Amino acid sequence: MRVLITGANGFIGRHVVAGLRGIGAEVHAISRDGKAPTGAIGHNGDLLDAQSTASVLAQVQPTHLVHLAWCTKPGEYWTSSENLDWVASSLLLCRRFADIGGTRIVVAGTCAEYDWTYDRMQEFDTPCAPATPYGTAKDALRRLLERFYVERGPSVVWGRIFFLYGPGEKHGRLVSDVVQNLIRGERVDTTIGTQVRDFMHVADVGAAFAALCKCRVTGPVNIASGKSQSVRHIVEMLGEIAGRPDLLNFGALPMRQREAPRIEADVSRLFNEVGFRTKFDLRAGLEDTVAWWARRAQ
Amino acid sequence: MRVLITGANGFIGRHVVAGLRGIGAEVHAISRDGKAPTGAIGHNGDLLDAQSTASVLAQVQPTHLVHLAWCTKPGEYWTSSENLDWVASSLLLCRRFADIGGTRIVVAGTCAEYDWTYDRMQEFDTPCAPATPYGTAKDALRRLLERFYVERGPSVVWGRIFFLYGPGEKHGRLVSDVVQNLIRGERVDTTIGTQVRDFMHVADVGAAFAALCKCRVTGPVNIASGKSQSVRHIVEMLGEIAGRPDLLNFGALPMRQREAPRIEADVSRLFNEVGFRTKFDLRAGLEDTVAWWARRAQ
Repeated sequence: MRVLITGANGFIGRHVVAGLRGIGAEVHAISRDGKAPTGAIGHNGDLLDAQSTASVLAQVQPTHLVHLAWCTKPGEYWTSSENLDWVASSLLLCRRFADIGGTRIVVAGTCAEYDWTYDRMQEFDTPCAPATPYGTAKDALRRLLERFYVERGPSVVWGRIFFLYGPGEKHGRLVSDVVQNLIRGERVDTTIGTQVRDFMHVADVGAAFAALCKCRVTGPVNIASGKSQSVRHIVEMLGEIAGRPDLLNFGALPMRQREAPRIEADVSRLFNEVGFRTKFDLRAGLEDTVAWWARRAQ
Repeated sequence: MRVLITGANGFIGRHVVAGLRGIGAEVHAISRDGKAPTGAIGHNGDLLDAQSTASVLAQVQPTHLVHLAWCTKPGEYWTSSENLDWVASSLLLCRRFADIGGTRIVVAGTCAEYDWTYDRMQEFDTPCAPATPYGTAKDALRRLLERFYVERGPSVVWGRIFFLYGPGEKHGRLVSDVVQNLIRGERVDTTIGTQVRDFMHVADVGAAFAALCKCRVTGPVNIASGKSQSVRHIVEMLGEIAGRPDLLNFGALPMRQREAPRIEADVSRLFNEVGFRTKFDLRAGLEDTVAWWARRAQ
């Protein structure tokens, strides 16, 4: 299995590379500076430039494509019109990959494709009706790839990522912000925290994408733990692990407008059809994350 | 109003150019060979090449974009994966058009975006659930443009073309094939013809797109006559106009599998909100078409 991965240097990417190496894949990464995480061979290429992408594909001749790259700047990516460039570039990338005889495409989707007025998201039962431009972009790309590459061309599997956390996460995300405040001994202002979410450790997300690459399952697959918790429960656990529950200040922030009360994942496809198992339960994952930030702060 | 039009040399395009000239627009056309129909200024450019497109936009600085170009080879365009290239190119075209400050985008959509298990298609009431890859591609492009260019950026209006006919139509289409057979004195094998469709003369389709360009209406607008007829009725009218009803052989061909019995258009948006009026009723339009092919055969 010769894999070309995009977004390899991102939060999830390096864990996907590790997961792919773990299943014996030869891993090539495309990035603008040619850098690649340990275990992958780096190639200079700009995904927003069709010719540059085509030339890397021609050189690497991958059998599998794992496409994670997208605009991801916290806050902005939900509405930025750069999403349109990423839909276009992703289509051209997949087209050229099909042209060179590639057999399998694995793409990072999102739980934001679902209609969030539902509580529990199941890949085929829950309607897709994204409330956000970002969700609309991912949803449109999936509709297109699923329609054009079902009967012929590469098989397409679409990992719908829910909520995640782990070492090295960007600022502006729940777990990374809370942990860093706790470690600095600063007060943690949060919402009342009643919203229920499914959080998965990023190493498990990475391993799940490697499993998607290897298996034969097609279509959307929820990438989640199946064990959702209230945000309050997660933040309390972080306070306890960091030894500073006194810093938590629930209710200091208002809920976002139209914040969905529950976003839970049905994970039977991932666990039963793909056969994936997580390494971290929530407590072990949060301990790992707090320990990483604590080491970094020393 | 300075308009850049794509697909200007196509079946519909030249009529859109005529319509735009009729409302006083300065019309520029982009095409691979730089050719343009009468009334438009031609520019060399390849829409499937992002840089080429960007350079024409920079040069022309259009205020309005009318985007008709797409893969249209009869038979093939329904399923060809070239549709994916056209979605990608269309997104990049619209992005670059927005970048240079363009204010209005008019795109050719299709009645194939609708769920054809419904009889009468209304822009907001009838669900979109395309049965074909072509329909999926147009539907995805529309979802993206509508979502990203509603609150800011250019306004987007989306003309959903139903069925059309007229002088110069390609082979492999109902009216052009029937008319040419009749004129050659050859037998016309058709289905039983009970399927009901809304057919519009291509000159009216062109004028409707010019009207979309000029008005302020946004979102999907059905481009149709509002007067649907059975295919049998249309073919009988053609036999009568050509003076050879004896050549018609209904029921010689089987209905296509899952052929939709009725595809009718609600045209209140086009007629009331856009304020458009057709020039041709069905009889006058078919007479015009038969006369054109008859002159050509002499």
